[in-house]
Amino acid sequence: MAWVCENNILIVGLGLMGGSYARALKRLGYHVSAIDSRESAIEYALEQGIIHQGSTQVDEAMVSAADTVIFALYPGVFREWIETWQHLFKPGAMLTDVTGVKACIVYDIQAMLRSDVEYIAAHPMAGREVCGVENSDDRMFRDANYIVVATEKNTPEAIDWCKSLGQVLGFSRISVLSPEEHDRMIGFVSQLTHCIAIALMTCSDNRHLVDYTGDSFRDLTRIARINDVMWSELFLLNREPLVEEIDVFMGELEEIRELLVRGDREGLQEKMRLSTTRRAYFDKPV
Amino acid sequence: MAWVCENNILIVGLGLMGGSYARALKRLGYHVSAIDSRESAIEYALEQGIIHQGSTQVDEAMVSAADTVIFALYPGVFREWIETWQHLFKPGAMLTDVTGVKACIVYDIQAMLRSDVEYIAAHPMAGREVCGVENSDDRMFRDANYIVVATEKNTPEAIDWCKSLGQVLGFSRISVLSPEEHDRMIGFVSQLTHCIAIALMTCSDNRHLVDYTGDSFRDLTRIARINDVMWSELFLLNREPLVEEIDVFMGELEEIRELLVRGDREGLQEKMRLSTTRRAYFDKPV
Repeated sequence: MAWVCENNILIVGLGLMGGSYARALKRLGYHVSAIDSRESAIEYALEQGIIHQGSTQVDEAMVSAADTVIFALYPGVFREWIETWQHLFKPGAMLTDVTGVKACIVYDIQAMLRSDVEYIAAHPMAGREVCGVENSDDRMFRDANYIVVATEKNTPEAIDWCKSLGQVLGFSRISVLSPEEHDRMIGFVSQLTHCIAIALMTCSDNRHLVDYTGDSFRDLTRIARINDVMWSELFLLNREPLVEEIDVFMGELEEIRELLVRGDREGLQEKMRLSTTRRAYFDKPV
Repeated sequence: MAWVCENNILIVGLGLMGGSYARALKRLGYHVSAIDSRESAIEYALEQGIIHQGSTQVDEAMVSAADTVIFALYPGVFREWIETWQHLFKPGAMLTDVTGVKACIVYDIQAMLRSDVEYIAAHPMAGREVCGVENSDDRMFRDANYIVVATEKNTPEAIDWCKSLGQVLGFSRISVLSPEEHDRMIGFVSQLTHCIAIALMTCSDNRHLVDYTGDSFRDLTRIARINDVMWSELFLLNREPLVEEIDVFMGELEEIRELLVRGDREGLQEKMRLSTTRRAYFDKPV
C-alpha cells in the first residue's frame, strides 16, 4: 500500500476534482485511468495528456487492474456504483473518494463493501466556481486542507496511506476526522457560507448595485455561483448539522440587529473586537 | 475649480484613507498638507514623503491656504471640525470627504456651512483590514468605485469637480447618488456584509476549525477584522437602512432553511440557479 510508482490508479468521475487528481498523479509518474460517462471529458483528458487511458463505460479490465480507485462522483451515484461494480475490484485494492459529506455515505459503503478491499474516505477542501475536467487544475491543492475521514472499520495502514495521498497531491495541511466531526465542520465552514452567499444574491434584485460594490461584497458572494445539482444534494445529505448551523448564525445576527436597534455602541464594539481577534487565527501563514 | 497643479490640498485626518489620497495627489504634483492629531502619523508621512507639510494642530495658515480640503475623519468628529474651524476656509474653497454614511451628515454640514465655500460629499469604496497612514496605499483605488454624493444644494460645477477628483485618484468607476440612495446601497453591499462576517466569527468558538477551512470561509470572513470604533459609528448612523437589509437577508436565509427542512431539492436548486445567474453580473471585467 505504499505510494510507489507502480501504482495503477483509476479515477471514477472525471470532473473538476477527478481531473485535478489525474493531473497531479500522472505528472508524478503514476499510471492513471479514468471512467466518466461524458465522452467529451474522456476525449479532452486523453488529448491533453491528463490520463493514460479512459472509458465512458465501466471497463472490467480497467477496474480490476487498479491498485487504487478514487471516486469523484456525486454521493448517490457513488453508492450505486459500489453496489453494482464492487465485484470487479482487485483483491487488496484501496478505495477513496472526494465526497463533500460523509456520515450519510461512509458507513453504508463500508458496510456493503467486500472484506478484501478497504475504503477510506477523504475530503479535499479545494474547489472552483466552475466545473468539468476542462477547468481542472491541481494548483488549487496548494495551501488547501485535506481531511482523511476515518471510521473504526479503517485500519491504521489505510489512514496512513490516505494521508500520504494528500501529501502526494500537494495539500498543505492534512488532518483526520470522524464522519460526524467532518460533517459538523463542513456544515459550518462550507455549507453555511454557501447558504449565506446564495441568500445575499437572492434576497433582493441587486443587479443595479453592480456599479457600487467593493471587494467585500464580491468576496462574500463569489461562491454564490454554484453547481445547483451537486450542492443541493450535499446540503440535503447534511441537512441536520446545516440547519443547526444556520440557526446558530441567525441567532447571532439577530443579536447584532438588537444591538443596532437599541443603539448599543459598546455591545457592537465588543462583537467587532471578538470577531477581529478570532479572525486573526484564520489568516494564512505568509 | 479645475484640477490644476497649482491646487493646494489639505487633508484633515491622515489615516489609511487620508494617507492614500495624499500619496496619489502628491505624486501627481499637487501641494499636499495634512492635519492629524497623531504625531506619529504626521512624522511618518513627512519622512516617507507622502505629504509636503503637516501639523498635529489646526494650523490657521495651512487651512486658509487650501483650495481643496479633504476630510477623512469619523463622521462625528467631521461635523465638530466644521463647526469649530470653518471660519478659516479660503473663500471659494472646495470641501469633500470620504465618510462611509451620508444622509446623517451631509445635510447638516451643508446647512451650517459658510455660503462662500462648497461641500460636495464623496465615498471612495476602497479599504483595507488594517488602519493608519503606515498602511496607506493608493493602489487600492484601482478597479474600485467612487461615489459622488450630491444634494440639491450642490452646483453642477462641484459635482463635475468631485467626479474629476475620483478620476485623478485613479478610481475606475465613478457614479453620482443622492445621500439616501447611497445609504441604502451601502447598507446592503457593505454594512450587511460586515454584519454577516462578524456574526460568522462570533456565533460560536470556531478557532479549532482553522485547520479545516477552505478559501470560501476565509473570503467570507476577511472583513470580520474590523475597526470597532469606526464601524460601530457607521452602523449606528445608518441604522434604519441596515436593520431593513438585515431583515430582508434573514427572511431569505429562513426560506432556504425551510427548503432544507422540507427536503425541497427543486426549491434549493432554483435558489442556486438564481444566485448563479445574478452573481455573474458582479464579475469584474478582466
